[in-house]
Amino acid sequence: MPLSATSSLSASTPSPLPPTPPARSGYAAAACYALPKVPSHSRLVLSNPLHKPNPLSRYCYRMSQLGASGRGVVRSSLIDPDGGKLVELIVPEAEREARRAEAARLPPVKISAVDLEWVHVVSEGWASPLRGFMREHEYLQSLHFNSLRLDDGSLVNMSLPIVLAITVEDKQAIGNAPDVALVAPGGDFVAILRRIEIYKHNKEERIARTWGTTVAGLPYVEEVISPAGNWLIGGDLEVLEPIKYHDGLDHYRLSPSELRKEFDKRGADAVFAFQLRNPVHNGHALLMNDTRRLLLDMGYKNPILLLHPLGGFIKADDVPLAVRMEQHSKVLEDGVLDPRTTIVAIFPSPMHYAGPTEVQWHAKARLNAGANFYIVGRDPAGMGHPTEKRDLYDPDHGKKVLSMAPGLEKLNILPFKVAAYDTVAKKMSFFDPSRVQDFLFISGTKMRTYARNGENPPDGFMCPSGWKVLVNYYQSLQNEELGNEAAAVGVKS
Amino acid sequence: MPLSATSSLSASTPSPLPPTPPARSGYAAAACYALPKVPSHSRLVLSNPLHKPNPLSRYCYRMSQLGASGRGVVRSSLIDPDGGKLVELIVPEAEREARRAEAARLPPVKISAVDLEWVHVVSEGWASPLRGFMREHEYLQSLHFNSLRLDDGSLVNMSLPIVLAITVEDKQAIGNAPDVALVAPGGDFVAILRRIEIYKHNKEERIARTWGTTVAGLPYVEEVISPAGNWLIGGDLEVLEPIKYHDGLDHYRLSPSELRKEFDKRGADAVFAFQLRNPVHNGHALLMNDTRRLLLDMGYKNPILLLHPLGGFIKADDVPLAVRMEQHSKVLEDGVLDPRTTIVAIFPSPMHYAGPTEVQWHAKARLNAGANFYIVGRDPAGMGHPTEKRDLYDPDHGKKVLSMAPGLEKLNILPFKVAAYDTVAKKMSFFDPSRVQDFLFISGTKMRTYARNGENPPDGFMCPSGWKVLVNYYQSLQNEELGNEAAAVGVKS
Repeated sequence: MPLSATSSLSASTPSPLPPTPPARSGYAAAACYALPKVPSHSRLVLSNPLHKPNPLSRYCYRMSQLGASGRGVVRSSLIDPDGGKLVELIVPEAEREARRAEAARLPPVKISAVDLEWVHVVSEGWASPLRGFMREHEYLQSLHFNSLRLDDGSLVNMSLPIVLAITVEDKQAIGNAPDVALVAPGGDFVAILRRIEIYKHNKEERIARTWGTTVAGLPYVEEVISPAGNWLIGGDLEVLEPIKYHDGLDHYRLSPSELRKEFDKRGADAVFAFQLRNPVHNGHALLMNDTRRLLLDMGYKNPILLLHPLGGFIKADDVPLAVRMEQHSKVLEDGVLDPRTTIVAIFPSPMHYAGPTEVQWHAKARLNAGANFYIVGRDPAGMGHPTEKRDLYDPDHGKKVLSMAPGLEKLNILPFKVAAYDTVAKKMSFFDPSRVQDFLFISGTKMRTYARNGENPPDGFMCPSGWKVLVNYYQSLQNEELGNEAAAVGVKS
Repeated sequence: MPLSATSSLSASTPSPLPPTPPARSGYAAAACYALPKVPSHSRLVLSNPLHKPNPLSRYCYRMSQLGASGRGVVRSSLIDPDGGKLVELIVPEAEREARRAEAARLPPVKISAVDLEWVHVVSEGWASPLRGFMREHEYLQSLHFNSLRLDDGSLVNMSLPIVLAITVEDKQAIGNAPDVALVAPGGDFVAILRRIEIYKHNKEERIARTWGTTVAGLPYVEEVISPAGNWLIGGDLEVLEPIKYHDGLDHYRLSPSELRKEFDKRGADAVFAFQLRNPVHNGHALLMNDTRRLLLDMGYKNPILLLHPLGGFIKADDVPLAVRMEQHSKVLEDGVLDPRTTIVAIFPSPMHYAGPTEVQWHAKARLNAGANFYIVGRDPAGMGHPTEKRDLYDPDHGKKVLSMAPGLEKLNILPFKVAAYDTVAKKMSFFDPSRVQDFLFISGTKMRTYARNGENPPDGFMCPSGWKVLVNYYQSLQNEELGNEAAAVGVKS
């Protein structure tokens, strides 16, 4: 049974600290400029080894400076969303009937299940300040610069094009209408798209600039882009009601606004986000617990972990969301992660597997949800090359690109430390290159192979109850496959 | 005979105006912030219809505001180079002998003719603040963000990776040496590359992110990238002496520093750059003369045209540099462009044909040379799709991307007006959509076909002496081909 929202969300102990004032005023801000150097004894590797600190990175400086001096606690969960205000595009309840009636009179545009995930993402402000599907000037900026320029001249990060493709028939049917209604796969009206702009969908250029390759076998390309139309339609979204999936997991789908409230409720003075699309093993847990300890060492009193599995489109051989959520719940029940300082929620975005380009989106969305620390791993949002025996991306490029990305200066990037199975200590430990022979690296593929074959991984790799969830899943898959084979044989005979 | 440097460069009349003070101080700058709106009667379409003006675009505002008020002249040829100081990497004469002796002791790296063009470009500061071939953190920023972040947190534009590829054998030979010597195709030591960094050359990713396609038949890819090594070497350049080509055109190769001096010598209060890699026809001339008139209308007293043909690598069917320079000289001799207000010089960069990505480089380099206005055409740096019957890029994307590019806010982008042959007026005119039937569009391909067949284009398309240069070139080509065919027949028989 998946962990209930209440068990993950209300298991908080009252914060031991009184709420602290917002950090953006008074001596804290001044001190940040007065003491821009990271103290040498800080144990946390800050942000960006690749270019010298820039004046925009005041969050880093302030944090480290205050942490080192021990002078006070900074309420840093209050990181501003991009554009200054969280975008929320759900039509207020009182107006829904009128908007629904209007939608019924507009040219209808049928959208796919993945398009609907994007409507969800944009409607809750994960992509703030974006207010709908991109018009061409936004699309071009995203594609060429991974960022959008705001009216005040500042840049916000926006590395993935969030676009809606339509067919030439759709385009003809729309004609000169200024607004259209978006219709979900099930036939329900989902949203109105206002002040639309229709422009060409050059798929090859979009793919090349987003993935840095046009190789066959990219999951999002094959399943989402290739079958889509050759036109894009941009406009401002008005979403008729909150998007729900009715899969028993909706209570995990907290919006950025709900997450911010939860962080405040818990009295978080730092929020560190961990993006994942895989089961949590003890190496992940080690890293997350170690990060919390580091933040405490730096002077934060109540750092909160946002364990934030991706919930949208994933490739076929990834572990499905429901199984992962059940596995995550076991990890918390077993105390591998502390439910009092952990929030588990679902990030509703689809997955592109676009490596260094996509990791920026993963970080930016969490910034909008109020996280001011982001843990970046080896080869984030990467995958194996579809046709060659290598990673699709240089595994180091993700964290390098993220640390240099325009618009993410205010986010603290925490590079992932490599954990591996320590055959001497019989547990997951941070890799120690001085005794390389003692370590066993267990890849995702290896892990899935163990589970598929019903083998146990070494003791201490994952909590047993979490492991059982995976074994059960792979067994059910095999049973299904056997059933299908039997059925196929039945058809043949 | 090509136009001599003296005839193009010293034909200036003394400026009718006393030098004006630099524009960055006093009331001009203040007025720019006080009156940020472009006057509605301004005839010049300013910069950027795609996003609202941002506070960085003060050059635009100031220009339009002062032009409208008629209150004074702004010395705007003094636009700062990116990074604040023009990079110049030629070793001073007194130190050359010692550096050359040092180079002879370093691991040698053989570079190609196109690599040498990049050494030239970087050595003179066209790519300021870049001081050499890119290290990985610069390469990644260029590839993903089309810009580089400086130490002060600001961004400069840098859309093309300026990189040096080496082979795995080169890499092994270099070992752990911190510096290497670059050796020209002819065997001469050209430069020392200091504090080197060697990293992987993922050609497919570089191509996909630079061109937005990986289609076969991209000239720079096929002739430069594909044959190059699988490693890149970055570092700081020390160039042993100015790069010369000894092709009778070196006097046209003015560095950014020399151009800035020339603009000052002429008392330019605005410099508008026109990038080209084709012969100048009367439509181009109409546009350039019209731009000058508009700048005069806005209050500038002495706008100078930088007619700036690209001199580096071009594709095989483009018109060679020497022929173009001769053609350009005829255009000035015939008075189609006024030599007193025109500077003809060669831009030493190689051509990528990378459309919206490359046009940023073309503009940024001219900014570094002191031009504060840049004329952008239809489909800049574009070409036909190598395998499909269409332009490789959306012809509008170049000017759109350029107008939104990070780091180019201070440059005034002047969109190209479309000129075509007016069959009624029997001359090139700006296209008037109300009498579309009167206009004849003569493409570059069509123009080359005319010249190749010895046909004359319609009267008024190009000055006759300039046209003759092209006809002679294509006839010499045909004679050569006939000669080759005869030789081939000879070999066969």
